[in-house]
Amino acid sequence: MSEKFNQLKEVLGEVSDLHHVTAMLEWDQQVNMPPGGAEARGQQISTISTIAHKKATSQEVGNLLDDLEGQFAEGSDEAALVRVTSREYGKAIRVPSEFVAEQAIVTTKAFEAWIEARKKSDFSIFRPHLEKMVEMKQKYIQYFPPTEHPYDVLLDDYEPGMKTSEVKEIFNNLRPRQVDLIKKIKSAKQVKDDFLHKAYNEKKVWDFSETIISQFGYNFNRGRQDKAAHPFQTTFSVNDTRITNRFEEGSPLSTLFSAMHEAGHAMYEQGSNPAYERTPLAGGTSLAVHESQSRMWENLVGRSLPFWEHFLPKLKKSFPSQLDGLSVKSFYNAINKVEPSLIRVNADEATYNLHVMLRLEMEIGMIEGKFAIKDLPQIWNEKMNDYLGIVPPNDAQGVLQDIHWSSGLMGYFSTYALGNLVSAQLWEKINADITDLDEQIRAGKFDALLGWLREKIHVFGHKYDPQDLVQKVTGSKIDAAAYVRYLTRKYSAIYEL
Amino acid sequence: MSEKFNQLKEVLGEVSDLHHVTAMLEWDQQVNMPPGGAEARGQQISTISTIAHKKATSQEVGNLLDDLEGQFAEGSDEAALVRVTSREYGKAIRVPSEFVAEQAIVTTKAFEAWIEARKKSDFSIFRPHLEKMVEMKQKYIQYFPPTEHPYDVLLDDYEPGMKTSEVKEIFNNLRPRQVDLIKKIKSAKQVKDDFLHKAYNEKKVWDFSETIISQFGYNFNRGRQDKAAHPFQTTFSVNDTRITNRFEEGSPLSTLFSAMHEAGHAMYEQGSNPAYERTPLAGGTSLAVHESQSRMWENLVGRSLPFWEHFLPKLKKSFPSQLDGLSVKSFYNAINKVEPSLIRVNADEATYNLHVMLRLEMEIGMIEGKFAIKDLPQIWNEKMNDYLGIVPPNDAQGVLQDIHWSSGLMGYFSTYALGNLVSAQLWEKINADITDLDEQIRAGKFDALLGWLREKIHVFGHKYDPQDLVQKVTGSKIDAAAYVRYLTRKYSAIYEL
Repeated sequence: MSEKFNQLKEVLGEVSDLHHVTAMLEWDQQVNMPPGGAEARGQQISTISTIAHKKATSQEVGNLLDDLEGQFAEGSDEAALVRVTSREYGKAIRVPSEFVAEQAIVTTKAFEAWIEARKKSDFSIFRPHLEKMVEMKQKYIQYFPPTEHPYDVLLDDYEPGMKTSEVKEIFNNLRPRQVDLIKKIKSAKQVKDDFLHKAYNEKKVWDFSETIISQFGYNFNRGRQDKAAHPFQTTFSVNDTRITNRFEEGSPLSTLFSAMHEAGHAMYEQGSNPAYERTPLAGGTSLAVHESQSRMWENLVGRSLPFWEHFLPKLKKSFPSQLDGLSVKSFYNAINKVEPSLIRVNADEATYNLHVMLRLEMEIGMIEGKFAIKDLPQIWNEKMNDYLGIVPPNDAQGVLQDIHWSSGLMGYFSTYALGNLVSAQLWEKINADITDLDEQIRAGKFDALLGWLREKIHVFGHKYDPQDLVQKVTGSKIDAAAYVRYLTRKYSAIYEL
Repeated sequence: MSEKFNQLKEVLGEVSDLHHVTAMLEWDQQVNMPPGGAEARGQQISTISTIAHKKATSQEVGNLLDDLEGQFAEGSDEAALVRVTSREYGKAIRVPSEFVAEQAIVTTKAFEAWIEARKKSDFSIFRPHLEKMVEMKQKYIQYFPPTEHPYDVLLDDYEPGMKTSEVKEIFNNLRPRQVDLIKKIKSAKQVKDDFLHKAYNEKKVWDFSETIISQFGYNFNRGRQDKAAHPFQTTFSVNDTRITNRFEEGSPLSTLFSAMHEAGHAMYEQGSNPAYERTPLAGGTSLAVHESQSRMWENLVGRSLPFWEHFLPKLKKSFPSQLDGLSVKSFYNAINKVEPSLIRVNADEATYNLHVMLRLEMEIGMIEGKFAIKDLPQIWNEKMNDYLGIVPPNDAQGVLQDIHWSSGLMGYFSTYALGNLVSAQLWEKINADITDLDEQIRAGKFDALLGWLREKIHVFGHKYDPQDLVQKVTGSKIDAAAYVRYLTRKYSAIYEL
């Protein structure tokens, strides 16, 4: 068997190289590429992707997987590799290459239309493309055996094994509690955050962000941070996982939180077992677990009081005039200010998940055919009013704000909220295991925390499915209770509820 | 035939994409990659190179070429495409994929070792890698039918059709004249250049370099300049051709000349006929012709009196204290100062070719097995003493200075000197066609010059072989006479010989 296993690994290694090369081409496109390079770059990415798809769905891989199935001890890395590869292969071969090619064309056009629609804040420009996209997704679902809910097929691509009904149940449990908390906060005394919106020197903020994430344990010998239009994390190998960031005049310190967020993703990737390199076991197990890492470093660490007890004195040294005389409690309150807002990516922790729930409901409605695409802006605005008590003044700040649908990403959004929930579940367990974590953070020490995450989460890569991993580490599946406890405790203190 | 021709172009397009992707991976390796990324990057480059090699040497391509040979009118682009592709195919099918893959891995490791060796000025770090590299080159040569000299095989990869004996003859003709000129200069009154070695602000020099090359016509919408250990130019498409540069404290203004040099390469690539994209006809026809472009912009333009009559007043505005009261003639003399020196890329025009001849002899000696690699530093130093009368104080400034051998580039060096010769041949023709070129340069206008180069050289890409192109444009093959005339005239004026 070991010869066939090595043959399989050989092909998977090439496929992995091709995926990482595509990631490199896309990273350069966002970070460096001069405008003229776009057309040829699209062609190059298409060439590499096509070769990767052909290799990954070849008869050779199918035969090797058939031969290897059930040949390795349960729980072994080998068995996990065969299981994960078989699942991906089984999904990939169901989708005809003509569909993949058509999807690519639909997506390219949809993305261009979305850019224009958002610029002009005119949903009608995007509408026919979104209609086509939903049709494509419905067609995609038909390639798979019937599931409990058709949306399950889409969700499974990002959160293997997760069902729509499970997500709905988790969210139904969470929603009233978050809505109730926001109501209480609304009628409490508001916090001041004007000093966050003063002018800050870009280079100093950037350097400070790198000081923080270096101290977290993000290894710059195995990564780097570059400027791009949007913050993101990408992986070229376990030893080269990069992040991007941006600087916004109106919200200068958000660069710090974006760096912590993306470094959270990157440290997960940097901590993956090196033995899994060039196999489907490398990297993070799902988007929700990935997001649990990024949100933990950004919020549970980076928006905590002990963290700023350590870092605020240093930040004051870089920005004495902006932060003069400020207490750490005032700074902490300000960076945790709750305010229902229009844009998901800028939302605070108390309101963020409601943005996600809204999108999940919209996607399910679209896939079920319950929502006509033409009615989407109206439905969006009604839901925003229901959930957050505000209505977007235009579609650019409403239904057109996210890149996902234009890029063919449906089934993705709920993982953002699930990630928040998992981060809190892990946090309770971590604090039970590392009883002086607050003091460590107050001293600027993160090695025990990172060590815990490496040992319990990162090193396993894709070996365990997300629900199994969360169960194994925390003793329960993904669940809202810990997150509700976390939010309630945090905001009760800040808003004196 | 048109259907088969399109089938061929389809495959060649994919191969071209893969080559450009490899160039992107290598560029990132030199410009951005964190140290940890090296191993995986080597693997990725190897995977892409192997796929490219397999596609380019497939039976399908062989059959299509057989069918298409002689089917197109002589002189047509189609006939050129079939001819150039057939030649490359004929060479490529001789080299096994396993060799290509191994070469990629050897090269990545050799490059990392060279970086460290040069940093520590310790040849012993690089030595085993260079030994392996030479072994690989000797093995490579064995895949080809016997040639007049084994080194011909390596030379032909960079200068199609050129033989070692021809290069030796050109160089034998040139060497005594250059040595004689240097002797005369040595006994003449020396020029002052102390102001070139003062402290200059790096960012201002960098910005000035970009002002110059923008004015030349290098298009930053279709390229960019980045910092790297070594200046080089690379192409990802006709619309994305990038350059790198560096800043050296001891020789701060050399950044300007490196930018002009690399922009000369890049403008050649930017001027290639867009219809040749994704075919072997795209880009420059040979390294010597490529170098004729870079050296022309760097030296015949960038180290000329009219050029600095235009730019010196501007440079003085950026660096008033360093250049205060300096006449343009003094500046011109200083940047053309002849002084036997250690580093090829910083060598003046009178001594540069001697550095190249030294390397050619070293390479031939290595390939013939006449020189043991362990003796290389000593041989290098002896030859430096023979040719230039100086001996490097360490290996970093001696045998370790060039990137080429670490990158698997052997057979390459002589094209630098040939490029100098071609630049002078072209320059005589250009000045016959554009009779007021000096006045144009004095006014900072380069569009007629760039237009001439585009029309006579750039647009043809790889359509004509180098010797044929030089013949077509100048009326004779590559020849040292024009360069000797140019050097003699220039230095007789500067040194009042």
